[in-house]
Amino acid sequence: MDDLKLNRHISGQFNAELEHVRNQVMIMGGLVERQLEQSLVAMMESDIELANRIIEGDKKVNAMEVSIDEECTRIIAKRQPAASDLRLIMAILKTIADLERIGDSAERIATIALDKKLDPKSTMLVNVEGMGRQLLKMLHETLDAFARMDVEAAYQVHRKDREIDQSYEALLRQLMTHMMEDPRAIPHVLTVMWAARALERIGDRCQNISEYIIYFVKGKDIRHVDNKTLRQTVARS
Amino acid sequence: MDDLKLNRHISGQFNAELEHVRNQVMIMGGLVERQLEQSLVAMMESDIELANRIIEGDKKVNAMEVSIDEECTRIIAKRQPAASDLRLIMAILKTIADLERIGDSAERIATIALDKKLDPKSTMLVNVEGMGRQLLKMLHETLDAFARMDVEAAYQVHRKDREIDQSYEALLRQLMTHMMEDPRAIPHVLTVMWAARALERIGDRCQNISEYIIYFVKGKDIRHVDNKTLRQTVARS
Repeated sequence: MDDLKLNRHISGQFNAELEHVRNQVMIMGGLVERQLEQSLVAMMESDIELANRIIEGDKKVNAMEVSIDEECTRIIAKRQPAASDLRLIMAILKTIADLERIGDSAERIATIALDKKLDPKSTMLVNVEGMGRQLLKMLHETLDAFARMDVEAAYQVHRKDREIDQSYEALLRQLMTHMMEDPRAIPHVLTVMWAARALERIGDRCQNISEYIIYFVKGKDIRHVDNKTLRQTVARS
Repeated sequence: MDDLKLNRHISGQFNAELEHVRNQVMIMGGLVERQLEQSLVAMMESDIELANRIIEGDKKVNAMEVSIDEECTRIIAKRQPAASDLRLIMAILKTIADLERIGDSAERIATIALDKKLDPKSTMLVNVEGMGRQLLKMLHETLDAFARMDVEAAYQVHRKDREIDQSYEALLRQLMTHMMEDPRAIPHVLTVMWAARALERIGDRCQNISEYIIYFVKGKDIRHVDNKTLRQTVARS
């Protein structure tokens, strides 16, 4: 935390509280990461039991969001943080909302395992898995940037979303062709399409989190700004 | 604001600030409502110009989110609100995030107007419009509950999401049948399907906002709780 210049507080207790809530976010992030990783395994091994464990595990993710949220509100009320401390709390509040939704996406992917008509060896699912691995890496990098509050790393994550969108578009086209060639498979292909969509949304969520990191460090809200302004904000020391 | 017991502040200025930020949320809500309503018109009249205006208008929605967000952060730093004032700010921060995404959904629906192959007179689009009207009503009721911080109204909105989910499932089945019967239409039916999905998500967002209202008034986070607990929380005076 020293690097984040948070150790100037007279109250050591305040420091401990900020440290604790930050650790909770990392634990929640680790949990969501594991959910996503396991959802890809469940999908590729048609493992119904694992899929059900993931669906059950999402409740834990939800509970963590609520508890971190409460802790942040308590800190604001009790410590009346200002400047960068307040920005940190704000960034955390938003980050956990996105993490919770990444958890929902993992749950969605796990449900593929429950569709017995879907063959894990099909090109379709192999490609979804490929995209899933891409997202898993992106999520890992996002959480890593968050842990270190690293603006440059956050910026790299932010840029990556374009690649994800391209993978998604390619996958959609492929799924669409598949539907046109074999109309009877449509309901199953749609299950895969929703999962692909869920993956694409994870990219957006990682992008959001990277924006909160930049907001915390740079003190500037860069949501919806153009690429040039974003690059300039990140570069400014 | 008297009803909300916010007039006890020694600082009349603080009152004015809370009043202002609350008004801003209502203005943003009104804007999003109009975007959604217009997006249905654009869809049913294949009005490309209107669709483009809606897509452009979403930038204003985004800008309002950022500006209200900043105002809330400023109030927290300056006024150090506690108890129900803090809960109000928290509820506002979350509400505007959901409103912003409802704006994105309206944008998505507007894009249907850009697909010249889609006939507004088709049963498919007529049904999407029907669902859209349902959502427009739900959004209106949500904003109304927010304006009055009415827990019972919020609870009624919350329950309504089940109806929306049923309309959505019925619509999906219909779209799926249509794809199976006419595979060449698949790309266009998918455009409609994404719009239907966007509408269904608006229901979730309205449900979220109703949860923030209950949180503000009752001081209890009821996200992810079961129906019985929710009913009890709302009933408790």
